[in-house]
Amino acid sequence: MKSVKVFAPATIGNIGPGFDVLGLAVDGLGDFVEAREIPGHKLVIEDIFNADHDISTNPDKNTAAIAANEILRMFNIRKGIGLIITKGLPSGSGLGGSASSAAAGAVAINELCNGGLSNDQLIQAAMKGEAYVSGGYFADNIAPSILGGATLTQSINPLKVLKLGSIDELIIILITPKIQILTKDSRDVLPKNISRSAFIENMANTASITAAFCNNDYSLLKDNLRDLAIEPYRSKFIPGFDKVKIAALDSGADGMAISGSGPTVFAITNSKKKAKIIEREMVHEFNNHGIECNMLITVPSKSGTRIIKAN
Amino acid sequence: MKSVKVFAPATIGNIGPGFDVLGLAVDGLGDFVEAREIPGHKLVIEDIFNADHDISTNPDKNTAAIAANEILRMFNIRKGIGLIITKGLPSGSGLGGSASSAAAGAVAINELCNGGLSNDQLIQAAMKGEAYVSGGYFADNIAPSILGGATLTQSINPLKVLKLGSIDELIIILITPKIQILTKDSRDVLPKNISRSAFIENMANTASITAAFCNNDYSLLKDNLRDLAIEPYRSKFIPGFDKVKIAALDSGADGMAISGSGPTVFAITNSKKKAKIIEREMVHEFNNHGIECNMLITVPSKSGTRIIKAN
Repeated sequence: MKSVKVFAPATIGNIGPGFDVLGLAVDGLGDFVEAREIPGHKLVIEDIFNADHDISTNPDKNTAAIAANEILRMFNIRKGIGLIITKGLPSGSGLGGSASSAAAGAVAINELCNGGLSNDQLIQAAMKGEAYVSGGYFADNIAPSILGGATLTQSINPLKVLKLGSIDELIIILITPKIQILTKDSRDVLPKNISRSAFIENMANTASITAAFCNNDYSLLKDNLRDLAIEPYRSKFIPGFDKVKIAALDSGADGMAISGSGPTVFAITNSKKKAKIIEREMVHEFNNHGIECNMLITVPSKSGTRIIKAN
Repeated sequence: MKSVKVFAPATIGNIGPGFDVLGLAVDGLGDFVEAREIPGHKLVIEDIFNADHDISTNPDKNTAAIAANEILRMFNIRKGIGLIITKGLPSGSGLGGSASSAAAGAVAINELCNGGLSNDQLIQAAMKGEAYVSGGYFADNIAPSILGGATLTQSINPLKVLKLGSIDELIIILITPKIQILTKDSRDVLPKNISRSAFIENMANTASITAAFCNNDYSLLKDNLRDLAIEPYRSKFIPGFDKVKIAALDSGADGMAISGSGPTVFAITNSKKKAKIIEREMVHEFNNHGIECNMLITVPSKSGTRIIKAN
């Protein structure tokens, strides 16, 4: 019987100011989904490894399985499939964990059915999976996890997603404080309206980041992570946020922002030496607030979701 | 005595959704400023040609002269200079007329003083000139008029402006209804707050337009001129706006928006044949509302403000 194993990278939703618009795949973290043909006509979840909380094995309540079933629906195929999910991403971390599982589920089944679906179809199927946990249709994690690099969601309906490219110089310091925020909760606090000045600055910064990734130019990313529209509301969920940001900038970071809905925060630099200092100071500040952290110094993932084993 | 004559192109402020952020220089329209050394130690306006309304010849109340004097201040020079301004742009048209005069004034004096100022300095001087008429510091017309192509104003303070490039396929249909709107008046109606959904769509569209000009890719510009944040307020000043837009889109335009604060509107296409039909239908609709128009089918101006004669 055929089987395929897929890896989908973690992602930074929004890349600071680009709420629901920008996203970036990062190296070294992600979720795995193995899909294999089994007897019967149903998709089942055979195992979930390394989950930090209860993830449903009911295919109707599991992001990877919902995405996988959506792909089967697109192919108009019914077959027995077993999924084995290995979580590399903690849930509710702001690193796009549910999106990565959904992306991996979609791409695995596409491969198992001999491929042929477009990136847009894969993204749409994965968005259905993520919608189950996040309560809405968003592509800012799904799109970069599938396509790699930075992506721009031009529109959701109809789906139009653009791969922007990557920035060779970019080094990312990811700090995940050990507290949990659910995407849905952090969306409930969002403001209904944005002041005109925040609107203008967020647009300018989002456009600058877009140009940075189009032109592979770190200097255009630098100083443009500032988010005046959403961060003031979401940062309240992260104890010590303001001080951690000061620590990051004081130790040489060229910007710091919340990854997606948090609590992971990320800082940027183009210096390996500075990256270690920035990481140390940010963790130190979280520790001062009694919070332990996971941390990783990484770079953009130019590759998106990929097949790592197929039999 | 030395003299120099300069041309500064017309500009489309905002390029649709990018309020105060994006701008685009266009071919075939603009203002001329001739600067010549004269006896004495003062800058005077010797003549203004082709003005469609009274433009002050008082150097403290004239955009070109204010910009010119700002350049002299930067050089710390006092000398006798005569300015001759030839308006190619109607005032209050939304084609950046005051910005073009200011840009031409700044660049002419820089050249007369043997050059050496940076683009940022030229833009800053010209912004001072434009501020006199518009009541605030904006670069979305000044920057493209000086640099050419499309520009992104990353920030005003400190000034950070990025030249994005141009789009070879882009054809622009400019329609200027013969009504007048002053920038200041059209800023007074702007909303203090933007809804979150308009904020997200405008950011996505502005980022798409940015990518379009970075990548010289017309397909990314197409369908992304939509401005949900500002247009609903400013379009009220333009009789028949909604119907003109329908006429433009129905006759094949890939988008239509207000140029700057209006009343000029612009539609886009990549087909010369369609451009003529779109122009005709838009003008027809304005005429139906009892409004005469000036019209021009043009393309982006890759060049910004340039010296056309120097003795």
